[in-house]
Amino acid sequence: MKILVVLAHPRTDSLTSNITERFTAGLSEAGHEYEIADLYAEGFNPLLFPQDEPDWDNPNKVYSNEVLREMNRIRASDALVFIFPVWWYSMPAILKGYFDRVWNNGFAYGTAKLPVQKIRWIALVGVTQAQFEKRSYHLMMQHHLNVGLAEYCGVQDSKVHFIYNTLAEFDDSLQDKNKNHFAALLNEAHKMGHTF
Amino acid sequence: MKILVVLAHPRTDSLTSNITERFTAGLSEAGHEYEIADLYAEGFNPLLFPQDEPDWDNPNKVYSNEVLREMNRIRASDALVFIFPVWWYSMPAILKGYFDRVWNNGFAYGTAKLPVQKIRWIALVGVTQAQFEKRSYHLMMQHHLNVGLAEYCGVQDSKVHFIYNTLAEFDDSLQDKNKNHFAALLNEAHKMGHTF
Repeated sequence: MKILVVLAHPRTDSLTSNITERFTAGLSEAGHEYEIADLYAEGFNPLLFPQDEPDWDNPNKVYSNEVLREMNRIRASDALVFIFPVWWYSMPAILKGYFDRVWNNGFAYGTAKLPVQKIRWIALVGVTQAQFEKRSYHLMMQHHLNVGLAEYCGVQDSKVHFIYNTLAEFDDSLQDKNKNHFAALLNEAHKMGHTF
Repeated sequence: MKILVVLAHPRTDSLTSNITERFTAGLSEAGHEYEIADLYAEGFNPLLFPQDEPDWDNPNKVYSNEVLREMNRIRASDALVFIFPVWWYSMPAILKGYFDRVWNNGFAYGTAKLPVQKIRWIALVGVTQAQFEKRSYHLMMQHHLNVGLAEYCGVQDSKVHFIYNTLAEFDDSLQDKNKNHFAALLNEAHKMGHTF
């Protein structure tokens, strides 16, 4: 498969970036091709302006060049993978703006459907699984990403993979345990790529 | 009360802007003071960069000037009101970035709580109430905004007010009916301000 990996983190030394490296290494080993859309590094602008507002009377509206370029990257792909930290029980603003602008009327929904077969969401959560699930945030985010976004655009094969407890490093009492913890998270990402 | 009204829409002739005008007229008539933070018009940058990343070891971290300025506007207010169109069953990227950056560690949560008593979310929904509730998007958004955002920051008095069917104007068969429909939506906003 040809896979577009959309990455949303401001630092290249972040765990999100390391997870992306291990995930894409797994993809390559399994014989897939991939391209990374590193939204921060590429200077993607998340602000929707009138040029990219949907025109409900015109599904053939011509959007801005930046949006057309991102649409073409999606057209060239079989699957999409989004890798991002969970901020405020949702995605970073730069990624939210990617959907606001790129998944537009006449391309992703309306007279068309999103031209990919499969979507995976790799969401890095600072707290533990128990803390996150206590208030059903996993269900809330699954509903938003799988139903509100993917299914709305005609993609049934959508799954969210949460990577938990990514802020464990800040607990100094757990240094040795943490080395194993982060190695395990990176191996998890590698396996996800390998079995994609 | 002193109320900070945060507005997120790229056009000043939008229904979101008109709703804001009628809402704030109601506030004034009821004797409240308000200030509008028009995120697009003020050029707010929704991108979080390392300078505004939370430092889990330092609740006294000094954030960027843009963030410090927005924090001071909140400190000068008793209540916050957010007025925005619902895009992808969530808020526009510019508003998401406002939370990513401004509601930060040591100011809104952690060693502190958000220094306001009351929050209202006025969310404009394109489709009808029946269409929106069919897939429980109202519950999903209420959980996100009231629990994930407001309650997490210590503000218990938080409510979402959905304004539905805001794209009705695009149905040409309903022209006359629509004039009444939009007048009713604007009156609803006015009443919300008047009874705040």
